[in-house]
Amino acid sequence: MNKQQIIKAVAEKTDMPRKDIAKVFSSIFETILECLEKEESVRLMNFGSLTVKTYKPRKGYNPSSKIVVQLPERKAIRFKLAKRAALKKLK
Amino acid sequence: MNKQQIIKAVAEKTDMPRKDIAKVFSSIFETILECLEKEESVRLMNFGSLTVKTYKPRKGYNPSSKIVVQLPERKAIRFKLAKRAALKKLK
Repeated sequence: MNKQQIIKAVAEKTDMPRKDIAKVFSSIFETILECLEKEESVRLMNFGSLTVKTYKPRKGYNPSSKIVVQLPERKAIRFKLAKRAALKKLK
Repeated sequence: MNKQQIIKAVAEKTDMPRKDIAKVFSSIFETILECLEKEESVRLMNFGSLTVKTYKPRKGYNPSSKIVVQLPERKAIRFKLAKRAALKKLK
């Protein structure tokens, strides 16, 4: 499912104009991104949370070149499904 | 950041009534959850994608009890940041 399909589904559920829904949609995800860029976590009740995790620099082994390489510090975004959302079907 | 704070930020950006923003907000994430429950992936341009990953049953080792246990099949939701979103600050 992509953005347009979600906007269509939301328009059917809320009877609101697609133009307004698209405006709110973009602004929500822009706000979430701004938050993650400040490495602040985002907690959405009944849905889940997005947190920025920092992985320390570490040694890695490249099996094809058989060389030990130094991997730099890395940041990744973790998504965790809210318990209530998980109870439905996805464990 | 939580749902109310995001709605407040979106209201400031879009000048739309909070009531409408809250309605769209809930409906967007409800739609995304319905999609994930059907194990369909969600791809949001300039933001990221949410996909359901299935982990096969496997043997696990419990270091405290020193017993090998059979772990059942497990499903988890993976979030991947869109490249364009990642270019800003988060690698």
